[in-house]
Amino acid sequence: MNSFQPIPNVVDHGDFLRDVIEILFSNVVFAGHSNKVVLWKQPESLKDLFDFSLDQIGVTQEKLLVLIKNTIKFSVKTGHPYFINQLFSGLDPYGLAGQWLTDALNASVYTYEVAPVFTLMETKVIQEMCKMIGPEWGDGMFCPGGSFGNGTAINLARFNLFPDIKLNGLTNLPKLVLFASEECHYSIHKFASFLGIGENNVLSVNTDDVGQMDVSDLEQKILEQLGLGNMPYLVVATLGTTVRGAFDPLNDIADVCKSYKLWLHVDAAWGGGLIFSQKYRSKLNGIERAQSVVINPHKLLAVPQQCSLLFVKDKDILHRCHSKGAEYLFQKDKYYDSTYDHGDKYLQCGRKCDVFKFWLMWKAKGSMGFARHVEALMEVAEYFETQIEKRPDFCLVSKRQYMNVCFWYLPRYLQGKRNILNNTSQLQKVAPQIKAVMVKHGSVMLGYQPLKNLPNFFRFVSQNSALTKEDVDFILDHIADIGRAVFP
Amino acid sequence: MNSFQPIPNVVDHGDFLRDVIEILFSNVVFAGHSNKVVLWKQPESLKDLFDFSLDQIGVTQEKLLVLIKNTIKFSVKTGHPYFINQLFSGLDPYGLAGQWLTDALNASVYTYEVAPVFTLMETKVIQEMCKMIGPEWGDGMFCPGGSFGNGTAINLARFNLFPDIKLNGLTNLPKLVLFASEECHYSIHKFASFLGIGENNVLSVNTDDVGQMDVSDLEQKILEQLGLGNMPYLVVATLGTTVRGAFDPLNDIADVCKSYKLWLHVDAAWGGGLIFSQKYRSKLNGIERAQSVVINPHKLLAVPQQCSLLFVKDKDILHRCHSKGAEYLFQKDKYYDSTYDHGDKYLQCGRKCDVFKFWLMWKAKGSMGFARHVEALMEVAEYFETQIEKRPDFCLVSKRQYMNVCFWYLPRYLQGKRNILNNTSQLQKVAPQIKAVMVKHGSVMLGYQPLKNLPNFFRFVSQNSALTKEDVDFILDHIADIGRAVFP
Repeated sequence: MNSFQPIPNVVDHGDFLRDVIEILFSNVVFAGHSNKVVLWKQPESLKDLFDFSLDQIGVTQEKLLVLIKNTIKFSVKTGHPYFINQLFSGLDPYGLAGQWLTDALNASVYTYEVAPVFTLMETKVIQEMCKMIGPEWGDGMFCPGGSFGNGTAINLARFNLFPDIKLNGLTNLPKLVLFASEECHYSIHKFASFLGIGENNVLSVNTDDVGQMDVSDLEQKILEQLGLGNMPYLVVATLGTTVRGAFDPLNDIADVCKSYKLWLHVDAAWGGGLIFSQKYRSKLNGIERAQSVVINPHKLLAVPQQCSLLFVKDKDILHRCHSKGAEYLFQKDKYYDSTYDHGDKYLQCGRKCDVFKFWLMWKAKGSMGFARHVEALMEVAEYFETQIEKRPDFCLVSKRQYMNVCFWYLPRYLQGKRNILNNTSQLQKVAPQIKAVMVKHGSVMLGYQPLKNLPNFFRFVSQNSALTKEDVDFILDHIADIGRAVFP
Repeated sequence: MNSFQPIPNVVDHGDFLRDVIEILFSNVVFAGHSNKVVLWKQPESLKDLFDFSLDQIGVTQEKLLVLIKNTIKFSVKTGHPYFINQLFSGLDPYGLAGQWLTDALNASVYTYEVAPVFTLMETKVIQEMCKMIGPEWGDGMFCPGGSFGNGTAINLARFNLFPDIKLNGLTNLPKLVLFASEECHYSIHKFASFLGIGENNVLSVNTDDVGQMDVSDLEQKILEQLGLGNMPYLVVATLGTTVRGAFDPLNDIADVCKSYKLWLHVDAAWGGGLIFSQKYRSKLNGIERAQSVVINPHKLLAVPQQCSLLFVKDKDILHRCHSKGAEYLFQKDKYYDSTYDHGDKYLQCGRKCDVFKFWLMWKAKGSMGFARHVEALMEVAEYFETQIEKRPDFCLVSKRQYMNVCFWYLPRYLQGKRNILNNTSQLQKVAPQIKAVMVKHGSVMLGYQPLKNLPNFFRFVSQNSALTKEDVDFILDHIADIGRAVFP
């Protein structure tokens, strides 16, 4: 037995990997504007067009390269400037380089021993961002998405109140209730359910006509819950709501939290990127008064998927709440100072390295580069809003608070009408029909949704620095062209 | 205003990205055996050697390339055959190609619309693996690691019993308790705590001298808990424990679960990869009787970090338990059949695409390729164990059950002794001291840990097809050389 296995090693695959890189460069990374955002196929049709099958025997490298090309062909080009469908987009060259390096090193970040550079890099990024949030901020952790970060905060807050939960659970505790605006992200409900609190114990606080939390309603609901004998313990404020980009009035909410001794968690997954901009930093005022904050650099800052952070003021709470001290991983008799092993403050064990791409972008652009990115995007949003206001065939849903511009396209018969909301059932159908045409063309991907009593409207959001004024004009003209054709 | 931003676009970064790829090819991917596993630096020293700083102004591309080289230089080479420190290793060329493509497309997988190919691909992989588990298996989800998958199962099991938990939480329910072996993964405790059950309500079931769950102790502990008025609801069995690679006796455990009407969750994060091998599939017998199973292709199958799946028998439970129906994402008036949108069955919202790298490896190698990989690794483990048994300077901790070979190096004064465990305090120091020397040489990274009353021992595990018989001989000789030098 000379060797255990006849399986070819990575070193025999140089030509294949070079071919893949060339395909990625020409078909994705440098494919440019002129391509479609998506070559749309209905699910049943895509099943026929793409060979998803998995068999006993592998296929040739030639066949694999064809499959790789087809994967690209039928995938959405989220880096295309006309992909404005979600709260992420763009393709940053430093972010991509960072991901590619991370993948090649295939690191898992739990001990210093296994990930020395990335461990210290995580600490550095967390420290720098804590400083930006406020002088007392102590620690943070990378999360697999903002939902998980919000969920972690929901648990930290109750652990802070009842540390015994860690060992003995919720049994015999009073009913814990938390508060979030009716426009908060749905992860609050999903994780309240997951954590044994229950969706119904997330009390929805009213929002005003631009989407901000109504603080007097918050206080009234807290009092109601106290009256019922339940235990309010947490308020989740949102900086940058998903649909309208609203910023809850943080200082007022913090005052209420202080009066009633409630933990304040800030979901700034979408809005938090503003922290890099001197010009817009004040939109986050009051964030320093919270006990925990979620910020997703993979949203506004266009760091590749995923890069999400939860920050906490109390510098030891992550360890106190999450640690278990598994001896096979966190030995105390190591050949280095094992306080550098951060894994035990996490709920995850193996964890993909999400820091390097972010750090590399930061290093490449500097904080000022992120600021310019954010400020340029805000100009785009301003310009977009102005154009909507100028045109009789479009109508703002509510005043823009941030990057989100929410608007209706108005068919001819609704243009100039005083109260278009008298036509809710008709408006409800407009955005979906226009979107269907756009996607079938592959020209633009733009999200829409209803909200409260408002029928379906489009939401423009951009995180892509490549978007220009001409692009905005094109998008609006394109919607109007389709609108006139569909609703003559 | 001709353009909104002066920030260079990805298309201006072709040379930079090509330079990065060349660095990755020569310094990581094709760097080869002869390099060190790690160029070890103490944390304080690495802080001086590496420029972690983040500033207002960015640095030049030349400087970035130096930083990228330094990141590689000081990082652990987890693809090196002598990295046998964790339950992952190796660098698969198809897996890497798959990651690189995923990164370039920067997808988030929640709706068909945004990720058409990856959505159908996830369904295909989940269906194929469900078939391999058992005919009645219905669904699955990708998870950010096995810990999260185990945690999700802990919640699904209680939701199955009390669906009202989703809305109303745990208040007023009896005290729920679950059972897992004392050698189970620590994620069971971490997530029991996170979910409001409490670590103390995870009852530790005794293991035998090779690490398998003692089923009579399980039954006795269930009865004890019933006697206390608590509510047993879940047993977690492990296929491939972290340290010893033990397989809990699944059919016996399933019988107990059936008698007491308990949910059976199988943590096969480490052992589950055997499902591809006809030769070893029987080690998983009984898995079809569970209600949920976690399998991590990023462990045994050497898929790049991270690729972890939770499977469930009940085909609707993920949706019933997790769905929230956020209207901004899961609109019902779409231009395609929105049942193809799987995001609402997940707890995460934005979610990195982990399927493509796995699918591409499967497509490239076929199921038989994974089988050959697994069987080759088992040969390595067998050979390793045989060599340990042959040598007077090594001693097995317990009989090998799987890929894990647990062993002590015996200093001269312990060789040939009848009961080496009379020398626990001396043995405790041996592995850490040898490991410290190996890491400082950068020659081999091999894990060690204590377990129950057993002092520190080494754990050999491999998932790297590149490891040869010569490598095993080298590793053992190397340990012995260091051992003789340190303990003369």
